[in-house]
Amino acid sequence: MPIFTAQQLYRLGVAVFEGAGVPRSEAEQVMDLLVESNLVGHDSHGVLRIPGYVDGILKGKIKPEARIEVVKETPTTALVNGNWGLGQVVAKQTMNIAIAKADKHDIGIVATFNCSHIGRMADYALMAVDHDMIGHCAVNAGPGVAPFGGIQRIFNQSPIGWAVPAGKEPPFVLDISTSVCAGGKIAVARAKGEKLPLGYLIDKDGKPTTDSEDYFRGGACLPLGGPVGYKGTGLAMVVDITAGILSGRGAAYLGGNRGQGVFQMAIKISAFRDVAEFKEEMGNLIRAVRNSKPSPGFKGVLVPGELELRTKEIRLEKGIEVPQATWDEIVQTARKMKVDVNRCLESFTS
Amino acid sequence: MPIFTAQQLYRLGVAVFEGAGVPRSEAEQVMDLLVESNLVGHDSHGVLRIPGYVDGILKGKIKPEARIEVVKETPTTALVNGNWGLGQVVAKQTMNIAIAKADKHDIGIVATFNCSHIGRMADYALMAVDHDMIGHCAVNAGPGVAPFGGIQRIFNQSPIGWAVPAGKEPPFVLDISTSVCAGGKIAVARAKGEKLPLGYLIDKDGKPTTDSEDYFRGGACLPLGGPVGYKGTGLAMVVDITAGILSGRGAAYLGGNRGQGVFQMAIKISAFRDVAEFKEEMGNLIRAVRNSKPSPGFKGVLVPGELELRTKEIRLEKGIEVPQATWDEIVQTARKMKVDVNRCLESFTS
Repeated sequence: MPIFTAQQLYRLGVAVFEGAGVPRSEAEQVMDLLVESNLVGHDSHGVLRIPGYVDGILKGKIKPEARIEVVKETPTTALVNGNWGLGQVVAKQTMNIAIAKADKHDIGIVATFNCSHIGRMADYALMAVDHDMIGHCAVNAGPGVAPFGGIQRIFNQSPIGWAVPAGKEPPFVLDISTSVCAGGKIAVARAKGEKLPLGYLIDKDGKPTTDSEDYFRGGACLPLGGPVGYKGTGLAMVVDITAGILSGRGAAYLGGNRGQGVFQMAIKISAFRDVAEFKEEMGNLIRAVRNSKPSPGFKGVLVPGELELRTKEIRLEKGIEVPQATWDEIVQTARKMKVDVNRCLESFTS
Repeated sequence: MPIFTAQQLYRLGVAVFEGAGVPRSEAEQVMDLLVESNLVGHDSHGVLRIPGYVDGILKGKIKPEARIEVVKETPTTALVNGNWGLGQVVAKQTMNIAIAKADKHDIGIVATFNCSHIGRMADYALMAVDHDMIGHCAVNAGPGVAPFGGIQRIFNQSPIGWAVPAGKEPPFVLDISTSVCAGGKIAVARAKGEKLPLGYLIDKDGKPTTDSEDYFRGGACLPLGGPVGYKGTGLAMVVDITAGILSGRGAAYLGGNRGQGVFQMAIKISAFRDVAEFKEEMGNLIRAVRNSKPSPGFKGVLVPGELELRTKEIRLEKGIEVPQATWDEIVQTARKMKVDVNRCLESFTS
C-alpha cells in the first residue's frame, strides 16, 4: 500500500477540487476534514471520498459556492437550506450558527436539509469545545438499517457525535453510528473482500450473514444491541426524527436522493456550572475510566476518542497508508481534473 | 400471584405515602407514575418501589414537601437543587420549567441535583408532547456498568427517554438504559431467582455470567453493543456528563449516595417545522416501521413505545399481577403506616 504524509494528501486533494471548479477556501475546508479522518484512523471518511465528491460536483448534484439559506430562525434555533453545497462547508457554517446562538442564548440548535455528505460527526461537535460548550451533531440519510425484528431497510446508520471539553485532558469525543456498523465500514470490507463478524448484517431474506455483498444485494445492517436491538432501533429513530423529520430532509426510508439531514446543537457549560470546575470533573472522569481495571484480554480501558488521538500521533509520524485501489481511483480523478499528481506529492517530500 | 386493578394499587399507595407524612397531592403524583409503570409493563419501576421510598422518607433521605430551588437560571436553562424531595414530584416540576422555557424561547434545558429516584424517563419526556415539543430526559446515579474492555463499575445504567408527538398515531416513546440491561431488571431476575442471558453481566473478575447474584457480589452490567460495546460506553458517558457532571450531581463512579442527577430538554417543533406536517411525517414513519417485513420468527415489527401501550390495554382490562413477595412487602409497609389495606382494596372491587 502506498504511504503519504497528511500534507501530500491535503495538497493533492485541494488541487483536485480546484480542478473541479471548487473555490480554494472550500477545497481547503473539505480536505482539512477528509485528511483529519484518515489521520484519526477513519479511512472510510477520508481521501477515498474524493472521487465520489468530484463525481457529484461534475454531475451538478454537489454545488460548490452554493450559499446556505436560513429559512426559519429564532434566537435559539435555525432551519437551514444547505442548497447542496459541499457538505463540510455547509455543516461548518451551520454548526457555527448553533455556536453563535448558544453564545448569546446558552443553547443553539440548527437543523439543515438539502445537504451533501458532511463526513464525520466529531468534526462539528468538536467545534463547540473551543467555546466551552458541549457539541452535538447527528445525521440522517438514506436507509441501510433494519428495525429490530424486521428485515427491511428503514433507518439510516444514524451517526451521532458528541464532544465535551475536559481541561488538561483531550476533549471527550464520541462519534458512532447507532447501528452495529457504519455504512463506510461495510464498503471498506467489501473493497477488501473481507468478511464482517456475524451479527452485523442480514441478507435480503433476513438471514444473518458475514458477506458484505449481501448488504448491497438487498440486505440490511442490524441496529445496535444484538438481542436488545430494540434499543439501537430506538436510537436510530431519534436521529431519524431530529436529523430527518425536524430538518425537513425527511425520514431515511423515503430514500437516499434527499442527501443528508443534519441536527447540530451547542450547549454553553457556564449556563450550568463553573467552567473550570466542570472541566476538572471531566478530567477526573476520563482518568477514572482510563485507570480502571481492564477485562481479561484487554491491555487497558480506552476513553471514547482516545484511540483516534493515538492513531493520529502514529500517522502524523509514519504517514497514511492508502489502499492501492483507492489510490488508483484518486489518481484517475486527479488526471481527469488535469492535476499534476507528482508535483503535489513532490513538494512535501523534498 | 395476586392481581389488582390500577385503582386499587393507586389508592393503597396514596394512603401509604400519606401515612408516611407525604402531602396528598405529592402522594398522588408519585402513585400516578408508579402505577403507570406497572400498567405499561415496567414492574421494576412500579409499586415495588413503595417500600423503598417509604424507607427513604422514614430515614429522612427523601424529604416530602421539600421545595426545589433554582440555583442558576437563564431564559433557556436552569440548574436546580431538588433538595431531596420525592423524585417524581421534583422531576415533574423541573420538566415543566424546561417546557415553559421552550414555550418562550423554543428550547429549554434543566439540570437537577440532590434528587431522589424519579422512576421512568418516558413519563417526563412525554410531558413535552402535549405542548407539541420533543421531550428528552436522562438520569445519572451510582455506578453499575463497566466500560467496554473494563471490569469495574464506572457508569450508571444511564437511562434516557425521548418522546415525540405523532398526530393520529400514539407518540413515539423511547425509554431505555444505555447498558444491555436496566438495573431494575437485574433486581427482578434476582427476586425471581431467574438467570439472565449471557452478555448482560460479568462477575467481579470480569468473567461473563448469567447469575444476577454476581452483579451484587462486585460484578457489573455490560454496556450496550456486545462486541461493539464501546458504543454503549460512549452513550453512557454522554449521560454521565449531561445528567451527572453538568447537573452538579457528579459522575456515577463517585458513588450512589449522591442520588440522581437529571437532564431534561424540551424542543419546540414549530421553531423548525409546521407542526401538522411534522406530525404527519411522524405518523408516516411509524406506519413504515410497523408495516415493514418482520424477521423470521417475529410476528411483526414494533415501534418503540408500542409494546407498552398494548400492555397497558391488557392490564387495564385484566389487572396488574404483583409477585407475592413484593405484595407482602407492600402490605408490611402499609401496616407500619397504619393503613387499612383491605379498605383500600375494597372500595374499588364493590
